[in-house]
Amino acid sequence: MHNPQINSAGELIHLLSVEGLPKAMIHRILDTAESFLSVTDREVKQVPLLRGKSVFNVFFENSTRTRTTFEIAAKRLSADVVNLNIGASSTSKGESLLDTIDNLAAMSADMFVVRHSESGAATFLAQHLNRTRDGAVHVINAGDGRHSHPTQGLLDMYTIRHYKKDFTKLRVAIVGDILHSRVARSDIHALTTLGCPEVRAVGPSTLLPSHLEGMGVKVFHDLREGLADVDVIMGLRLQKERMKGALIPSAQEYFKHYGLTEDKLKYAKPDAIVMHPGPMNRGVEIDSVVADGPQSVILSQVTFGIAVRMAVMSILASSKGVNG
Amino acid sequence: MHNPQINSAGELIHLLSVEGLPKAMIHRILDTAESFLSVTDREVKQVPLLRGKSVFNVFFENSTRTRTTFEIAAKRLSADVVNLNIGASSTSKGESLLDTIDNLAAMSADMFVVRHSESGAATFLAQHLNRTRDGAVHVINAGDGRHSHPTQGLLDMYTIRHYKKDFTKLRVAIVGDILHSRVARSDIHALTTLGCPEVRAVGPSTLLPSHLEGMGVKVFHDLREGLADVDVIMGLRLQKERMKGALIPSAQEYFKHYGLTEDKLKYAKPDAIVMHPGPMNRGVEIDSVVADGPQSVILSQVTFGIAVRMAVMSILASSKGVNG
Amino acid sequence: MHNPQINSAGELIHLLSVEGLPKAMIHRILDTAESFLSVTDREVKQVPLLRGKSVFNVFFENSTRTRTTFEIAAKRLSADVVNLNIGASSTSKGESLLDTIDNLAAMSADMFVVRHSESGAATFLAQHLNRTRDGAVHVINAGDGRHSHPTQGLLDMYTIRHYKKDFTKLRVAIVGDILHSRVARSDIHALTTLGCPEVRAVGPSTLLPSHLEGMGVKVFHDLREGLADVDVIMGLRLQKERMKGALIPSAQEYFKHYGLTEDKLKYAKPDAIVMHPGPMNRGVEIDSVVADGPQSVILSQVTFGIAVRMAVMSILASSKGVNG
Repeated sequence: MHNPQINSAGELIHLLSVEGLPKAMIHRILDTAESFLSVTDREVKQVPLLRGKSVFNVFFENSTRTRTTFEIAAKRLSADVVNLNIGASSTSKGESLLDTIDNLAAMSADMFVVRHSESGAATFLAQHLNRTRDGAVHVINAGDGRHSHPTQGLLDMYTIRHYKKDFTKLRVAIVGDILHSRVARSDIHALTTLGCPEVRAVGPSTLLPSHLEGMGVKVFHDLREGLADVDVIMGLRLQKERMKGALIPSAQEYFKHYGLTEDKLKYAKPDAIVMHPGPMNRGVEIDSVVADGPQSVILSQVTFGIAVRMAVMSILASSKGVNG
Repeated sequence: MHNPQINSAGELIHLLSVEGLPKAMIHRILDTAESFLSVTDREVKQVPLLRGKSVFNVFFENSTRTRTTFEIAAKRLSADVVNLNIGASSTSKGESLLDTIDNLAAMSADMFVVRHSESGAATFLAQHLNRTRDGAVHVINAGDGRHSHPTQGLLDMYTIRHYKKDFTKLRVAIVGDILHSRVARSDIHALTTLGCPEVRAVGPSTLLPSHLEGMGVKVFHDLREGLADVDVIMGLRLQKERMKGALIPSAQEYFKHYGLTEDKLKYAKPDAIVMHPGPMNRGVEIDSVVADGPQSVILSQVTFGIAVRMAVMSILASSKGVNG
Repeated sequence: MHNPQINSAGELIHLLSVEGLPKAMIHRILDTAESFLSVTDREVKQVPLLRGKSVFNVFFENSTRTRTTFEIAAKRLSADVVNLNIGASSTSKGESLLDTIDNLAAMSADMFVVRHSESGAATFLAQHLNRTRDGAVHVINAGDGRHSHPTQGLLDMYTIRHYKKDFTKLRVAIVGDILHSRVARSDIHALTTLGCPEVRAVGPSTLLPSHLEGMGVKVFHDLREGLADVDVIMGLRLQKERMKGALIPSAQEYFKHYGLTEDKLKYAKPDAIVMHPGPMNRGVEIDSVVADGPQSVILSQVTFGIAVRMAVMSILASSKGVNG
């Protein structure tokens, strides 16, 4: 199967990557998320869609923030949630990745939320479960290496659709360390699929991958030019470890050239929204005045993220395995 | 707002400190706890008061024991509980305390149980949530630095009221390391508010703060004198790290002078109760014969503690935010 | 009480060891597990037998895999589950094992699942709870030192009964590091109690305890001879640390002599089943072709294990304490 996340009936059976998700499927996920947003506003926030189902957060790489969002989403759907920090356990006993997953599947897991430092790990597990469990046990990729982080990409699309409605009229600038960002990759694929006519990448050449133009992305090295007349600004986290290396001169220097400040923001459209996947380095890639300002939708992204994860989980749970 | 834990209608919207809690509010919490005690005795121990609510145990400082008591209390109220050991995650990525809390609040948290090593951290967060969320997201202080540990103070009051009924006739001795104890501070405030006519502090001068007399507390350096005719003896944990320092000569020496033994206990009233917040250093601040003896109510404190935490959570959940 | 796990009415009030469990009790556990297996196959996998009960996973020794199986079993019975990794908390504050357990019991725990590195720890706690709580708070031994791991023994019996029906006609070979295996010990006791006429131990003399023959076990040092005409082959995990020591020459050498390969498997009956408690060292004690082959029931063991743990928990919860 060249696309293990979609079955022969066109249903989503895993969420591995935004790459390869049809436009209609993305909109279905966003529509479902929209219906859940009222759930998080209600007094009682639970719906019974995953009652009696077991969701395993299998994190081979620690990420409390990401794990928490999936844990909350699963609990709001009434699922049983088991958190496994695998780094510290079985694999240290020399058990293979597949043995670990086979064991958990044998405990009647219904869904795995997987975070792994290696690109392709989630896809590898999904292919295995398609073979051994007919795809009736589902995988959600919660970040694999530099490859993909599809729920973040989808929540970003939800956020843009919420504030800007029509993708086909937007100019979007992604700013910062695109080279090391799994989020940027997911966002570029999703924006292209959804018909966004102009996606820009803005950053120093040391932090931009070489193949961007081939993906239809316009490259800018000057922030003012990159932000000119855009509708959406997506900031990215600058990893601390990059700041000390040869890739950028210093955090101060980086902020001077690529930090999102009120001044720079003026080059964008007056109603442009400012996004960031978090956690933010205030004073490095974004100024606090902007992060907490009227154009920031950063906390809305977090709220939407829960609804998007609920949507993905409920869609997967309703699918019928590899043969539809 | 000079007292961020109480709203304009006089409702409790956060529990930050026993200091500033009116007497009627304390009694309301204890009365509510009493009604929950039958819950813990029942076959099925759950009540649905927090069904669909999300309680986040946000521990910036590790304390499995304290975290467990809140986790149990929240689950008995049917809440969804998410445990976050923040020390090991986001803050290590350089995210600020407020960004962490804003993010969790954006995930539709209803209540934060916060433990932090710095005094005032819970109050700081409550003030922030009063501004950004109108106080509709609640904070319970589960211990901040040396400052306050209000649920421990309240469960101590519950225990005393349970066994001794009338606070206005009691002589209470708090024994040991009052200088470093957030529990002692909460207890002194609560006892004073509830009308206890005589609160004593007993310990070596190196372990007693200087301002005790200003709080209306009688200071004793001799344990026999301090225990004479008291109704309630509250032992305190001696931190291991103090035992090696210059504050006390040795654990043996400390036990000789300030350890609660059967012999010393005879100076108190015959029906005096012995309390301790745990975990105990047997043979240091308390002898096993006393800890496990007929006057010890130490395990009852633990049981009452669950009910008191349920009471606080249910009262907070029923409050209406900053404007009542 | 010489057998603290069974009360005066013959009810199971703790599960400490397979040793001393009457045959009828073992079959009752297996029968109950069988009734739960349909639960794990159903769409909604929960039954309300432990609704409102609190199950504490108290692990003084880390084991994510074992903890997870109990967590899932408890959640399928609708219990509240609290996970406590005690190694990292109270005992590091110098609290005694009994104080820790007394405290948790005072929080109205209904059941403790205990893992401890010291033999007899679970029995010690059960005896204490029989004295202090009349055995109304239950202990399940989830592994204590080299002593016992009774739920693993019971799930092994479930697996054998499932595939082979009648114990009284079976030849069973346990292969590998029996000396350090708490599983082997539990299995030998259970097989003997259930009437299995021939239990074999196969391994190098350095990995076999000396008292095996006294337990009615036949000892073999040659794998081909040991497997000849057996119905059941139970592989055991070889601890990594043994491989470097003086007990075996090397992993390669061990595999050559005692590794379960297709070739060796031919000496057993053609319909013999192959079991392993996991996690496996592929290429050390078992070849992947065998582990994943048609005679392997290793993943079924995992599935049955959840049902067996549900059975044990539900039977304990329905018992009436020390006096029946």
